[in-house]
Amino acid sequence: MAFESKKLINNPNDVVTEFIEGLVETYPGLQYLDGFPDVKVVLRADITGPKNDKVAVISGGGSGHEPAHSGFVGDGMLTAAICGDVFTSPPVASILAGIRAVTGPMGCLLIVTNYTGDRLNFGLAAEEAKSEGYKVEMVIVGDDCALPPPRGIAGRRGLAGTILINKIAGAAAASGLPLSDVAAEARHACEIVGTMGVALSVCTLPGQPKSDRLGPGKMELGLGIHGEPGAIVADIQPVELVVSHVLSRILSEETNYVPIKRGSRVVLMINGLGATPVMELMIAAGKAVPILQLEHGLAVVRVYTGSFMTSLDMAGFSITIMKAEQAILQRLDAETKAPHWPVGVDGDHPPAKIPVPVPPSRSKTVEVLSRPKQLNQQGLYLEVAIEAATLAIINLKDSLNDWDSKVGDGDCGSTMSRGATAIQEDLKKHYPLNDAAETVSEIGSSIRRVMGGTSGILYDIFFKAAYARLKLNKQSDVTPLQWADAFEGAISAVMLYGGAAAGYRTMLDALIPASTVLKERLTNGDNPLDAFVTSSDAAIAGAESTKQMEAQAGRSTYISADILASVPDPGAMAAASWYRAAALALKDKFKAGGT
Amino acid sequence: MAFESKKLINNPNDVVTEFIEGLVETYPGLQYLDGFPDVKVVLRADITGPKNDKVAVISGGGSGHEPAHSGFVGDGMLTAAICGDVFTSPPVASILAGIRAVTGPMGCLLIVTNYTGDRLNFGLAAEEAKSEGYKVEMVIVGDDCALPPPRGIAGRRGLAGTILINKIAGAAAASGLPLSDVAAEARHACEIVGTMGVALSVCTLPGQPKSDRLGPGKMELGLGIHGEPGAIVADIQPVELVVSHVLSRILSEETNYVPIKRGSRVVLMINGLGATPVMELMIAAGKAVPILQLEHGLAVVRVYTGSFMTSLDMAGFSITIMKAEQAILQRLDAETKAPHWPVGVDGDHPPAKIPVPVPPSRSKTVEVLSRPKQLNQQGLYLEVAIEAATLAIINLKDSLNDWDSKVGDGDCGSTMSRGATAIQEDLKKHYPLNDAAETVSEIGSSIRRVMGGTSGILYDIFFKAAYARLKLNKQSDVTPLQWADAFEGAISAVMLYGGAAAGYRTMLDALIPASTVLKERLTNGDNPLDAFVTSSDAAIAGAESTKQMEAQAGRSTYISADILASVPDPGAMAAASWYRAAALALKDKFKAGGT
Repeated sequence: MAFESKKLINNPNDVVTEFIEGLVETYPGLQYLDGFPDVKVVLRADITGPKNDKVAVISGGGSGHEPAHSGFVGDGMLTAAICGDVFTSPPVASILAGIRAVTGPMGCLLIVTNYTGDRLNFGLAAEEAKSEGYKVEMVIVGDDCALPPPRGIAGRRGLAGTILINKIAGAAAASGLPLSDVAAEARHACEIVGTMGVALSVCTLPGQPKSDRLGPGKMELGLGIHGEPGAIVADIQPVELVVSHVLSRILSEETNYVPIKRGSRVVLMINGLGATPVMELMIAAGKAVPILQLEHGLAVVRVYTGSFMTSLDMAGFSITIMKAEQAILQRLDAETKAPHWPVGVDGDHPPAKIPVPVPPSRSKTVEVLSRPKQLNQQGLYLEVAIEAATLAIINLKDSLNDWDSKVGDGDCGSTMSRGATAIQEDLKKHYPLNDAAETVSEIGSSIRRVMGGTSGILYDIFFKAAYARLKLNKQSDVTPLQWADAFEGAISAVMLYGGAAAGYRTMLDALIPASTVLKERLTNGDNPLDAFVTSSDAAIAGAESTKQMEAQAGRSTYISADILASVPDPGAMAAASWYRAAALALKDKFKAGGT
Repeated sequence: MAFESKKLINNPNDVVTEFIEGLVETYPGLQYLDGFPDVKVVLRADITGPKNDKVAVISGGGSGHEPAHSGFVGDGMLTAAICGDVFTSPPVASILAGIRAVTGPMGCLLIVTNYTGDRLNFGLAAEEAKSEGYKVEMVIVGDDCALPPPRGIAGRRGLAGTILINKIAGAAAASGLPLSDVAAEARHACEIVGTMGVALSVCTLPGQPKSDRLGPGKMELGLGIHGEPGAIVADIQPVELVVSHVLSRILSEETNYVPIKRGSRVVLMINGLGATPVMELMIAAGKAVPILQLEHGLAVVRVYTGSFMTSLDMAGFSITIMKAEQAILQRLDAETKAPHWPVGVDGDHPPAKIPVPVPPSRSKTVEVLSRPKQLNQQGLYLEVAIEAATLAIINLKDSLNDWDSKVGDGDCGSTMSRGATAIQEDLKKHYPLNDAAETVSEIGSSIRRVMGGTSGILYDIFFKAAYARLKLNKQSDVTPLQWADAFEGAISAVMLYGGAAAGYRTMLDALIPASTVLKERLTNGDNPLDAFVTSSDAAIAGAESTKQMEAQAGRSTYISADILASVPDPGAMAAASWYRAAALALKDKFKAGGT
């Protein structure tokens, strides 16, 4: 099963030149060499070779790793980036053109990831440039820690650690050091850095179909950055286990790739592979720091989290650890104008970051409530009704999510169920069930505590408004008609603050008919429990009728009529369901005794 | 067909708190309120409410839009971000806690995206905060341009334009203005900004299966940022058409959402929706700028390209246009410590960005070659051989890509075919076919011009080394044995620079046996054309035998033996194929005449 590749990009042969055109439109400090399509070189707009009085720092390689390396061109980091086609080393002529464009009398340092193609092309270009009279040195980065010490001629691959080397060399060059010193700093940094990646998907080459190599539920550990398969395919595991495993491999004493011992300070980089959202990268960073501290005895002094060296649209991330020697930190913290070097990361973290306590209200006083030791008749009724109503919502969670995913954001069931669970918990702990008004107010508070979202606040308003009506009554025993009045008042408040009305395809389309019928049946003299059940039929019918309605409120207004006709409004269905469950439970349990 | 959601994250209820933990580990300038899991507020580490002598600027809403809004907290932008659960407005208690934590005597501005839930929650919190004595104002952002003027109570949705409003308000507050002025600047900015999005995939809610709503080959235009479906589903089109369509909708005179007329200056934001690589965003930016200039007569003075306000892992982007009034530019360019506000974007672009010319070599002189008017015997042979060899490679492109996708980076066929095409073109234009040595050198130059990659440089070395050997001969007519010597020398050079040998699973495993057999047969006195064909059998057999070899060179060293045994080395197959095609073509065409 191969999935079609979905991309808006055009001819795959043009993606790199089109990328560079967008890049220089975005960043006024960047320029490119006029050698498209063969020569693809991004360089600082403020540098011309013969006048460059600092060592030029040049990196590059195949494209598809953006923002690497062109996004790191800028004062204090790279002087130029040489871009090959996707996953293809740039040709010698491009590298030579880049060297000639930015190299002055101080010479240039080429920072090359350890792939045969890059080594050969940059190597030949370096030799040709030397024959033209330039001072050139080359540093090869091989920071991969996924594989055992390599066989044959390959050596360790260059991965995201290259970005840190680029920064260190760029800062050293900006400080005015001669070429040999800049190269020595970069080479030393290469010896104290290690990287390993984990991927959840395979990247899509421009113009080619999506690969199905990685099956469902599988991840690859120890991958390269060109879509080559990982060293291990494993079942997907929770993020802290994956992070822990990767860190153990990087810091393995057996391979001894990274000479970092307990008690050291380290720099951590969590690098997204192209299609990994910031949220997921930050979660990985949040897991890695305590693991490094607790399992490895290391102090994490800098954390770089972002997508720095990617593999097209691969999902996953790599972790890089570098020993945080003082001289290294100084280079990493040095200012740079490179647009994709992360900002706000420098400066020391407090030894343990202490969250700020939640500030108290300027005015509120807290009242302590508790569940009565003995429930009276009304307390028993309330308990049965609340338990049945909340259980109905929890049972309906998946259906609600399903309907909501078609007409909204798919979380109606989860949100409602979270509220119902909180009500169940608080009910047992502290609802003053013998006091109907205060109990209703507490339902609102439980909802406010956890629900959020539109439905949360509307239900909060609903119960707080019902509370206000119930408080008007003198007796603590609430009559059925007083309940019906409170219900009506609560609905009015929801209409007022929320701005919706009957027929807007909201929970009101369940609640308004229920309220009307309840009032009508009670005025008619029906048994209150029967009236409650009868009105709940109206609630269900009203909720079902939302299928025929156009949306007027909430996110459903953005959905086409065809889709809307196939599902009921989930908010209306939720309202009808808890209402009906409460009615049926009361009738089941108390109909014999009557009221 | 629903695809399993592949995520390393844990309990979907915890993702926001885990995100915040990683965020504050990454950025020492950020803190959070100690109210997890219900209160999720990120705030500047250097601000405590009562001492804040500037207007506090607070934004927020449901999570899942990272880095929005917490990544924009920092001096000069937001003072605090209130985070709800994924796609769920934060509860009133969280918003209140955030207001209390950062608001001093100057008061606070709440910047709220126009969704009912956010409006209600932030609205209630604002009212409660006012009742506690705080000065509070609220600005609602509704920048969506996808839909016709809305029905019912909804209004236009808040999209990525909110990020620009946050920056403008934050800069205004940092400049010391009072609350009413900060709010007025933000409200004015809301009136001159418009946004519309395009999605290629639907986002995956944590803990839920991947949606299959968007079929293959389809995209959605005018989507929201919570996974709600777009206004239009259309066939995927080239990126410039999509960008052009979106820009026309934003700038539509019919809706008149954004009062921007021809001749205005504008700010452009290309915003990734979560899983869109930087390369694709930059390509969209590169297309949008000339379209705005040429089709709409607008000068683009700032381009912000990146992932600012996302929808979890949605693939696609939104475009935001804001009128670039001078006061607005000043706010956008003002310094900020917010870590995710883009850097390197400020400052004026030259009116037309002129690429730098490719600098000349310090030493090279260029020789002009041309195709002879009349081909001699050797020229005819060379032409036939080169045409057959290049055609074989072009025909084999897909098979080579396929093999390479299993053991390498999947581009062997594309790369080789690009080289073969260049040789065909240059052959017709300027190969001096009657001079065998120079023609061989030109083959290397054609390859160098376009191929890149390992194979490119190795073939470059191969042909340049053969050229050196052929040049040693006195006569311009090359004997079969001299060809065989040159072939042998070329192979030696590839071994020397590339570091590989026989049995390393490379192109050498085709070329070495061919060279051995060729020399042997010629020494034996065979007809040269027969010897060529016989040696090409050895090349094919050698290439096939790579299936049994462990990889020792190139990226294949990272692949497991099981996979390697199922495919031959694509480089070896390519070498055997062009060699054999040349041999067969020469024999076909010239066997009658003999040599």
